[in-house]
Amino acid sequence: MSATTINNSSDQATPQDFAAVFARLKPHMNALDIFLRGQLAAFEPEIREMADYCIDTSGKRIRPALVFLSGWSWGDVPSTDLVRVAAVVELVHLATLVHDDIMDEADLRRSRRTASRQYGPEAAVLLGDALFAHALHLAAQFPTPEICHAVSDSTRKVCAGEIVQTLRRGTINITREDYFRVIDLKTAELFRISCFLGGKLGGYPPSFVEAASRFGRHLGIAYQIYDDLADFFGQEQRIGKTLGTDLQSGKVTLPILALLDRLPADDRALLVEEILQRRDADLPKRLRQMGELGIFHVMAAEVETELIQAEAALAPHGGLAPVSLLHQLCGTLRYQVRNLQAPTGV
Amino acid sequence: MSATTINNSSDQATPQDFAAVFARLKPHMNALDIFLRGQLAAFEPEIREMADYCIDTSGKRIRPALVFLSGWSWGDVPSTDLVRVAAVVELVHLATLVHDDIMDEADLRRSRRTASRQYGPEAAVLLGDALFAHALHLAAQFPTPEICHAVSDSTRKVCAGEIVQTLRRGTINITREDYFRVIDLKTAELFRISCFLGGKLGGYPPSFVEAASRFGRHLGIAYQIYDDLADFFGQEQRIGKTLGTDLQSGKVTLPILALLDRLPADDRALLVEEILQRRDADLPKRLRQMGELGIFHVMAAEVETELIQAEAALAPHGGLAPVSLLHQLCGTLRYQVRNLQAPTGV
Repeated sequence: MSATTINNSSDQATPQDFAAVFARLKPHMNALDIFLRGQLAAFEPEIREMADYCIDTSGKRIRPALVFLSGWSWGDVPSTDLVRVAAVVELVHLATLVHDDIMDEADLRRSRRTASRQYGPEAAVLLGDALFAHALHLAAQFPTPEICHAVSDSTRKVCAGEIVQTLRRGTINITREDYFRVIDLKTAELFRISCFLGGKLGGYPPSFVEAASRFGRHLGIAYQIYDDLADFFGQEQRIGKTLGTDLQSGKVTLPILALLDRLPADDRALLVEEILQRRDADLPKRLRQMGELGIFHVMAAEVETELIQAEAALAPHGGLAPVSLLHQLCGTLRYQVRNLQAPTGV
Repeated sequence: MSATTINNSSDQATPQDFAAVFARLKPHMNALDIFLRGQLAAFEPEIREMADYCIDTSGKRIRPALVFLSGWSWGDVPSTDLVRVAAVVELVHLATLVHDDIMDEADLRRSRRTASRQYGPEAAVLLGDALFAHALHLAAQFPTPEICHAVSDSTRKVCAGEIVQTLRRGTINITREDYFRVIDLKTAELFRISCFLGGKLGGYPPSFVEAASRFGRHLGIAYQIYDDLADFFGQEQRIGKTLGTDLQSGKVTLPILALLDRLPADDRALLVEEILQRRDADLPKRLRQMGELGIFHVMAAEVETELIQAEAALAPHGGLAPVSLLHQLCGTLRYQVRNLQAPTGV
C-alpha cells in the first residue's frame, strides 16, 4: 500500500497505514516545531534553556496530531490558527508531564533525564507553571476569548483528575466508576479539547465539532486503558519504563481492578495488603495470574468498546475530510494493543 | 479623623488613616469573599475542600485592594467586573503561594499549616495548578481576550521571577540589578497588573490606566524591599515567621547585598561562605552589624525612592477618584517601615 492511499478499514490496519497518516502530518509537525522554537524567545533567558529542554521533538505529539487531523482540509499547508492551537495543547500537556514527573520522582522520560532531575524539583514546579502560562498566553491571542476559555477549563479538569488520582494512591477503595472518572479528567479531556479546537479552527460546522469532541474523548479513554495495560504487558524497551510501576507505586488501574475482581479471596487480600503498604509486589506472580485470568483480553475488549464509540461519533460525518484520518488513529491504537507482549501462557 | 475624611498627606499617615481606607473597601472585600466562595462549586468535590482551605479570609488581599482602588468610583458598590478581576489576581497570587510553600518547605502561613503540609507536596503542586487554571478560566469570561492575555502574560513573568530566584539560591554572584530584576518579575508585576486591570475595568482613560500601572509597579518594588527588610527587622509575632530565614536559606536580598557591600573584607568572606554553604549564620551578629552600618536606614531610603516614583506617576491625574486612595497605600507602607523593630544600637 502506498503512502498516499489510506486504508479506511482501521481494524485491519498495518504499520504502513500509520506511516502514511504520519507522513501526511509531516509539514504540520514541522510547522509546529518551528512555531514552538520561535516561542522560546518569549521566555526569560534563564528559563529558555529549561523550556527548550522540555519542547523536545521526540514526543509522540498525539494531541497536536488530533488538532491537525480534526481540522484537516485537503491540501498540506496547516493554517496559522491550527499550528498555534496545536502548540497550546502540547504546552499544556508538557506542563502536566513536568509536574507529573516531580510527583512520581521519575528519573527518565523518553530516555532523557526528567526536568525535575535535570534542574531540581523546585525549578520544575515553576517551569511547569511557566509552560502552562505561556500556553494560555498563546490561547489569548485569538480574537475571541472562547479558545482561552476552553483551554483553561480543560486544564482545570486535567489538574482535578491528577489530584484525585494522587489522593487515592495507596488506597484500595476504588471502583471501576472512580477509575473511569479519573481518566476522563486527566487524559480524555485534553484529547477531547484537541479535537474540539481542531474542528472549530478548521472551520467545520458545530455538529462535526461536537462529534469530533466525542471522538476525542473516547479515543482518550481508550488510550489511557492501553497505557495502563502496557504497564503490565508492554516491552520495557519500547514503552521506555519499568513494567509494573503503577502497581509498585500503589496506583490502582483498570487491569489491577480486573485482577482483584477475579482472584480468590485469600490471594486478593494479599494483593490489597501489597497495595496498601506499597510493599514490593511479586510482579512475576501477578503477571502470571493476569495471563491465567485473561486480563489482557478483558482490557483489549475495554479499549475496543471505547474505539467503537469513538468511531460511531464520527459516523454521520463520513464525507468530511478529517473522518478517514481520525479513523486511522483508532486503527493505530488497535495495532498497538495487539502488539503488546502477551504474557507467558496466554 | 473620621472614616470618611482621608488625609491626603501620606508621609504623615497614622493607623487610623489606613483603617479608614480599609473601611471603605469593606463592601468590596465582602463581595470578593462571596464571589470566591461561589467559585468552589466549580471544583471537583475532592479539590473543593483544598481550594476552600487556600481561599481563606485572613490574607492581606493587597492585590484585590489595588484592583478596587484603581477602579474606584464614588459610591460603595463594586462592579461585577471589578470583583471578578480581583478574584483573578488573588487566585493567581494564592496559586504562587501554594507552590512557593512547597519549595520553601514551609510549615506555616498566616499561622495555619501550609497546603503542602496539610495535603502533601504532590497534591499541592496540582492544587496550585488548579487555582491558576481557575483564575484563567475567570479571566476568559470577559467579552474580549484582553484580560486573559494580560493575566497569562503576568503569570508567566511571576513564574520567571520565581525561577530565577530559585536558581540563584545559595549563590553569591548577585548584583543589585539582578535583585531588582527578580522582584520586578516576581512581585511588582502582579501589583502592576492589578492596577492596570482595576483602572481599565473601572472605565478610566488609557493615560490613567498607564499611570496606575506604573504606580503599581513601583509600589510592588517598594513592598518587596520592605518585606525583605522585615525578615531582619520585623517583630516575629507580627510578621508571623522566624527572622533571618532568607539568610539561612541562602536567599540574597537587598539588605544582605547592602551588608556585604559595607563589611570589612575578612568578615565579608565569612558571610559569603555562610551563604554558599547555607551554614547556620550568626544572626545576632549580622543584625548587630546591620544596625552599626545603618542598613535599616539605607533600606528605608530605597523604599522611599520607589514610593516617590509611585506617587509621581499619579501626579497628572490628581483629580480622579482613585488617586487619593492609592496615595494612602503609600502612606500605609511608610508607616509599616517606620514601625519595623529598629535593631539594638540604632
